[in-house]
Formats: sequence, C-alpha cells, structure tokens
Amino acid sequence: MKIAIEPVQDTCLVEAVTAAGSTVVPLDEADALVWIGGPDGFPKLADTVRWVALATAGIEKFVAEGVLDDRRLWTNASGFYAVGVAEHALALLLAGLRQINTAVLDHWAKDRIDPAVRSLRGSTVAIIGAGGIGRELTRLLKACGATVIAVNRRGRAVPGADRTLTADRTDEVWALADHVVLAAPATAETYHLINDETLARLHSHTWIVNVARGPLIDQAALHRALSSGVIAGAALDVTDPEPLPADDPLWTLSNVIITPHVANPASGLTREMAPFVAENIRRFEAGQELMAVVTPGAGY
Amino acid sequence: MKIAIEPVQDTCLVEAVTAAGSTVVPLDEADALVWIGGPDGFPKLADTVRWVALATAGIEKFVAEGVLDDRRLWTNASGFYAVGVAEHALALLLAGLRQINTAVLDHWAKDRIDPAVRSLRGSTVAIIGAGGIGRELTRLLKACGATVIAVNRRGRAVPGADRTLTADRTDEVWALADHVVLAAPATAETYHLINDETLARLHSHTWIVNVARGPLIDQAALHRALSSGVIAGAALDVTDPEPLPADDPLWTLSNVIITPHVANPASGLTREMAPFVAENIRRFEAGQELMAVVTPGAGY
Repeated sequence: MKIAIEPVQDTCLVEAVTAAGSTVVPLDEADALVWIGGPDGFPKLADTVRWVALATAGIEKFVAEGVLDDRRLWTNASGFYAVGVAEHALALLLAGLRQINTAVLDHWAKDRIDPAVRSLRGSTVAIIGAGGIGRELTRLLKACGATVIAVNRRGRAVPGADRTLTADRTDEVWALADHVVLAAPATAETYHLINDETLARLHSHTWIVNVARGPLIDQAALHRALSSGVIAGAALDVTDPEPLPADDPLWTLSNVIITPHVANPASGLTREMAPFVAENIRRFEAGQELMAVVTPGAGY
Repeated sequence: MKIAIEPVQDTCLVEAVTAAGSTVVPLDEADALVWIGGPDGFPKLADTVRWVALATAGIEKFVAEGVLDDRRLWTNASGFYAVGVAEHALALLLAGLRQINTAVLDHWAKDRIDPAVRSLRGSTVAIIGAGGIGRELTRLLKACGATVIAVNRRGRAVPGADRTLTADRTDEVWALADHVVLAAPATAETYHLINDETLARLHSHTWIVNVARGPLIDQAALHRALSSGVIAGAALDVTDPEPLPADDPLWTLSNVIITPHVANPASGLTREMAPFVAENIRRFEAGQELMAVVTPGAGY
C-alpha cells in the first residue's frame, strides 16, 4: 500500500515501511498516513486516507484539537513503548526508595539517608491504569519481590499481578499500597485522580511515580502532601504543564524527582515505533484488526 | 548452646538466638560470639569460644587488625544481605542510565537528558565478583532484558548468566560490557581493579556501579575518566575513604551518583542477619558446615 510519513521523512520509518513491501508517497497519493508530530500542523485529509497512525500513546491533545474524525481508522502508539516506559518507572521508584535524590543533593548524608532507605522487596505496589506498561512493569516488580495490585478499566487480569481490580474500585487501593505508579491515560475520569483526599489515604512511607500524564495529579495537593510528610516522595516523568516552570514550588522539595518526560526518549521514538508500524501495515493489508486502534470518543 | 551477643544486645539477634533454642550469655560463659561491631574493641577470646559470627560481608578491616585467628571457626555475613544489595545496585545502574542525577541537579534539561537516556534492555552488563549479590543481580538484570557476563574467582557458573568467566580472564570483559558492576571482596587482587588502563578499555556510554568496596577503584583515575568523557558515569555506594571528604573532586561531577554506603542500611542490618544466625546455630549444633565460613588467609 501507499504510505505517507509526515511531517518529516524519518529514516527508521521509511525503512520499516519499505521493508514491509509498501511505498512511501506524498500525502495526496496515500492510502495511509504515519504522523510523527503533534496536533499542530496536522493536515486536512482526503477520504482516500483510510488509516492514520499517530506516534504517541497519549492522544488527548489530538482529541482536544478535534483532529480525530470518524471517516477512517486511527491508531495510536499505546503499548509500543511499554517496555521502555516500564523500565523508567522502575528506575524512578527505586531511585526514590533508595534515596538517590537526597544522595545527589546532600553529600554523604548518611544519618538522614540510612534510616530512610526502603526496599522494593516485600512492598506492595499499585499500578493504576495497568495496560501495556503495567503488564511489563508487573513483571519487573515481581522479579524484585514486590506484591502487585493492578487496576484497569475492565479489571482484565494482568499476568503475574497478585490482584487486578476494576477502575471503579480504585478507592480500595490507597490503603493497601505502599507505593503507587500511575500509568493511566489522561481522561475526564483520571483528571486529578491524586488529590488531597486520595493523598490523605496513602502512607507516610509512600512514593508516587507518574509515567502517564501530568493532569492525573493535582500538583498543588501533591506539594502540600510532600512538604508536610503525608507521603514520602514523588518521582515524576510528567508534569502539568510541561516543561514544569522554573519557579514551580515542586522544584524546591528534596523528596521530589522530576525527569523531563524522557521515559520514552524522543531520540529513540521512531526506532521503537517502526516494527509496530510494519506489523500494522501487514495486518491492514490482510484485513486483520490493527494494534492500538483508538476508541472513538474514549480519548485513548 | 550458649551465645554472647556483643558489643550491644541487639533485640533482633537476641530473639533469633533464643528462638533457635540457645541461651544468650556473657562472653566469659559463651561457646560462640555474635559480634555486630567493627574491629575496634574486639575482645580477647578464650579458647572456649569455638565460633565467631561477624556481621559484615567485607572483613578486610578485621584481617588488617589481626582479629582473626586459627583457634576457632569464623563466619562473616557474605551473602546474607545479597538481595538488598543487588536491589541497590540495580537502582544505581538504572538511575545512571535514566539520567536521574542530571534531572535532580538541572531542572527540566530535556535537551541534555533526552539524548543521553539509555535502556538497560538490550545492554550487556558485567558483574565482577559474582557471588551471592551477583547471583541475585543477574536475576534482576535478566528480567530487565540485559545480557549478563559474570566473573568470579573460580568461574563457577552463575545461574541465569549468559557467560561466567574466571577472574583471570577479567581483562576480556571490559570491551564486551556496556556497563560494569563491582561486587568483589577487597583483596590484594582486586585493589584498584578499575584504573587508567581498564577505564581506557571501557566505552564512552559505560556506567560503572560499585556496591563492593571503595579500594576496588583508583578514584583519581576514575575522576580523570569521568571528567574527560572516557566513560559516561559512575554510581558508587562505597568510596575510599568513607565518608568521602567534602572537598573530594568526585562531588563536583554531574555524572557521578554517590550513596553513603547504604545498600545494606545499618538500620535494618540485624533484622536481615538474624535468620542466618539462627540457621548457623542449628548447623553448628548438628555438626554441619556453617554458611559463610571465612577462608583463613584469603580475606573473605
């Protein structure tokens, strides 16, 4: 089939499309579009474009800008970067538990750090929004000796998790979990899921990790909880807004780790995405269901 | 049997010894001594003390002070803390690869951090001195998708490792490994194992992790390699000396993570050690070989 790759002709994707037996063409000749940009500059599409492949897992900005329509199939990158993002989530959680933030800022502060070090082994970790990232992270956490409670929309059992709960039972999780990892899409239901009330139900030794989207956390409430000892710390790869402004009070806290949205580094994005695009081309031509089809109206 | 616990009557150990059916007694009545201090203040022992259990894995200071003798059995804590130390090693390596040090020091430096982020998945990690810690770390690294090359004195195969080499082939490892974890005891053979020559054979993307003992690394050579880009970074839980002095030049580098010897936190040490002491009491009474018997003269 004929595929347009926009807004740049990325080498990894051109190679993958060509290796899949398809031809890279200009958009006005294309059966499908692989779009590796954001919603800004998204082109007006002819009806001959039957499938659009977006390069991000979170597509809330495309939804907000009204880019998605019902005249063709849309896929996102949900699950394509799951393995790398799960590794970053593990790195953030371990960095928090092992006090690496304090160690970097406060030289040889053994009196403070030694009693604050926690082990992942033997702890209970809740993964909120356990899809592709959650499945992979569950495997890593179990290898480290943690108990895993997975929460997802339909309560579809996550392999290896000790329990899987439906999202409407999320409230039961806060008291059970030592630590919480957020991996859910940004939707109306997950907006400010972490707020004053939910934070109050967590523990003083709890670390929160967010590799999902910034708006899942009420950051003012998080700042209150972190500065008053309600929870132990937060390790965030995403914030609201991004970049987090230089004068944001979260930067002043020593029990916060903030990486600049690099769980899935832009420098490696298309290399990671390429094999999934190739497989979806194969499926499209075979008339099979594609991976990561966007559910119209659901926002993910 | 009658056990003395010195220099303090730690609760966890008293409970473990009592639960094992033994009696806690003063040293002059004891068949065995559990010593949870360092070499300073180590008591003169009567020949009636047939076994001394030391609480640390590294015993080079006891050896240097001439504490060990050949009039009784000596055990150390080799392997007792392996699971926790392996977790700390994984935390340090992931923190380095995921640029958490830079993220903590330099706020939202996405332009610097994004291209520098590396994945553990697909990388090759060499574990130098793969005993108990190495065995556990191998399991964790394999779960993360890394290839593991284990090196130990006799080349005794480490379960799960892709290759195990004898220590006399360590020189072959530098070029093969993306990253290096040091977990070997401090002996004459391992002194300054990481030096100008070995560093020059590593890669510009290499992170070195040390959870063993500071003297395994020539720190002046390490500083040269880190400040000139010969390797990517170092994450150290041990230094030479400890504490690392406030004016040590390593503190000035942004590609160094130093935790203050907390891989096995002192706050949890006797709780971790207690079940091993209980099992060794059982073995001693049954006339079986103890765990972690010190090899006289070898220094570990």
